[in-house]
Amino acid sequence: MPAAKRMVAMIENSSFIRKMFEEGTKLKAQYGQDNVYDFSIGNPDVPPPPEFKKTLLDVIENGPGHGYMPNPGWPAARTAVAEYLAKEQGVAMSMDYVMMTPGASAGLNVVLKAILNPGEEVITVAPYFVEYGNYVEVAGGVLKTVPAGPDFGLDPQAVGAAVTAKTRAVLINSPHNPTGAVYTKEQLDGLAGVLEEAKEKFGQRIYLISDEPYRKIVYDGIVVPSVFQAYDHSFVVNSHSKDLSLAGERIGFAALNPKADDAAEIAASMVIALRIYYVNAPSLMQLTVARLQGAVVDVSLYQKRRDMICQGLAEAGYEFTTPGGAFYLFPKSPLADDVAFVNILKEERILVVPGSGFGGPGYFRISYAVPDKTIENSLPGFKRAMEKVG
Amino acid sequence: MPAAKRMVAMIENSSFIRKMFEEGTKLKAQYGQDNVYDFSIGNPDVPPPPEFKKTLLDVIENGPGHGYMPNPGWPAARTAVAEYLAKEQGVAMSMDYVMMTPGASAGLNVVLKAILNPGEEVITVAPYFVEYGNYVEVAGGVLKTVPAGPDFGLDPQAVGAAVTAKTRAVLINSPHNPTGAVYTKEQLDGLAGVLEEAKEKFGQRIYLISDEPYRKIVYDGIVVPSVFQAYDHSFVVNSHSKDLSLAGERIGFAALNPKADDAAEIAASMVIALRIYYVNAPSLMQLTVARLQGAVVDVSLYQKRRDMICQGLAEAGYEFTTPGGAFYLFPKSPLADDVAFVNILKEERILVVPGSGFGGPGYFRISYAVPDKTIENSLPGFKRAMEKVG
Repeated sequence: MPAAKRMVAMIENSSFIRKMFEEGTKLKAQYGQDNVYDFSIGNPDVPPPPEFKKTLLDVIENGPGHGYMPNPGWPAARTAVAEYLAKEQGVAMSMDYVMMTPGASAGLNVVLKAILNPGEEVITVAPYFVEYGNYVEVAGGVLKTVPAGPDFGLDPQAVGAAVTAKTRAVLINSPHNPTGAVYTKEQLDGLAGVLEEAKEKFGQRIYLISDEPYRKIVYDGIVVPSVFQAYDHSFVVNSHSKDLSLAGERIGFAALNPKADDAAEIAASMVIALRIYYVNAPSLMQLTVARLQGAVVDVSLYQKRRDMICQGLAEAGYEFTTPGGAFYLFPKSPLADDVAFVNILKEERILVVPGSGFGGPGYFRISYAVPDKTIENSLPGFKRAMEKVG
Repeated sequence: MPAAKRMVAMIENSSFIRKMFEEGTKLKAQYGQDNVYDFSIGNPDVPPPPEFKKTLLDVIENGPGHGYMPNPGWPAARTAVAEYLAKEQGVAMSMDYVMMTPGASAGLNVVLKAILNPGEEVITVAPYFVEYGNYVEVAGGVLKTVPAGPDFGLDPQAVGAAVTAKTRAVLINSPHNPTGAVYTKEQLDGLAGVLEEAKEKFGQRIYLISDEPYRKIVYDGIVVPSVFQAYDHSFVVNSHSKDLSLAGERIGFAALNPKADDAAEIAASMVIALRIYYVNAPSLMQLTVARLQGAVVDVSLYQKRRDMICQGLAEAGYEFTTPGGAFYLFPKSPLADDVAFVNILKEERILVVPGSGFGGPGYFRISYAVPDKTIENSLPGFKRAMEKVG
């Protein structure tokens, strides 16, 4: 066995999402692109905002070239993000607490590496983005999950009940993948209270890590509350994969609340973690997004799709919570066995991901980052699948 | 102590190179940019070849956009690299054995993660690029070093003497950082022989990993021999940081010799390792370098600088081996204590890195990826420093 043993195990357990992606490719080859309704992957298909290309071309023409920059990123990019975050989060920020990272996944890895000692626990809310388990494990920690509250909201008491002396961090994601839930200010304040109580009880500071790549993809006038205002000992990790539709370019950041306990030491650890375990974010994209803080794709395109899929599934008899953000819907599977139901949908050439793949069995995930006509043409199939099992 | 304990240790041991970089920034603020001769960092300062910008703009205008691609990279990019490698290395290649990575450091990490089991050993030749130690440690392995041969060449017998039943890989770098040595075909063939003997003796296959970011930066008509031809069980890791002057953009690849034992399983492990531990290479740069395989910066600029610094140091009485490639020179320190001599050079506002920082005490490293006038103006200082200690 020449590959590392743990890698061979990982090949066998390769994620549901990726498997769906590959099966989708096969079905499309067989039936034609337009006759397969692929809701399996969250790959933004709306174009970047128009100012993106203009800015990119200007950076190429007039920027500092393509060489190395300091590990945590171009000062101009870190400063721009800090200034934007100060407004968005409503707290004083400086570039010292912002690291540009190649996407949010890198940002989360850097934060976890910076704070976790071997065996320490990280709590997240299930259902959850399954890669979190890998990120925590790679950083030497242990991921524990607690159930979501009603409508997939955050339940501070559930988190409180799971806290132990080994808990080092709580990792939240809002707007949420795979449910589209947006946590409320009351929920964040409740969580902050629970974490302060835990500090009293166990003596150790628990950090809050907020993964926010969908922050700007929200509907119906919803405002995503500020994590930095709710709790001092916090990180915000973000990427421009979704809000600027740049998923393939790997550009994001990890920011630390300057009021966090021992903020300077943690920030220094983040810089080292980025250097040792990762690489800097790509130069051209750093300098481009520096000038596009606050810009966002046309969210109304996603809102229209959300409304189409929600209306269609409601008419077909599916139960679900209407998502307030992101581009995911997480309906209840009409069969207790969500994998079985996903296979029934596949007979209709509809590709979705079983909730089991997100620690949420009995549900399935629809990514509606797809063309309108994919949604429209899939609805009869969703209806037939429901009739088959209903 | 809120940051992870191992990170705090790393902050304290932060690399020589980075420290020099920061001290350099301070000196420059004090004496002015032009009065500090900074040879401490290998940041290419020659522009990318002219076709780079044209291609980049065309990819922006006519490419597939900025979304996700399959983890190992755009098929067009993997295919282009495979086709180029087939010519360069003189072996049959396909895209299945090429992963696009965000630079060579990511490529090396992906290869090491893909093959190393906990506690397995990797042998490299000292002096060496110190980050290798981190890469191997992060992958759960142990780095062992063997001394270089004459003129910093590869000594196959030294490698052979260090092989044990736990040896999993040999990691070489040619053209070499920090010495500029280029390994010969005879040295590679000798190493291949040693590794085949080790297979007979210990039963386990030892893989050869060749880190080649300076492959195209060579002088005096030197040709870098093919690792894939010398030994079947081999990887080539490369980046376009140096040959296209794109160090900040993080674009490179890791390629596996299709003839390697269990090549398919290892390639699958590399894909997973890239997904779990790293991120895909940035989309725009993948598609751009796909069309620039074989292109290279104007190497004559580096050759001119090599000649200037070599002539100047020879006249000042320094001993060194003339480098055949890369943009580094590794002279003998006139004091046994290289750190002390580096501090004497600093009094002349000359910044170089002590050989100790590369596992090569008694030497120091000059990176001559700097403007001609930096070299010219530094030479009197090099001379005075020699006179002080001589």
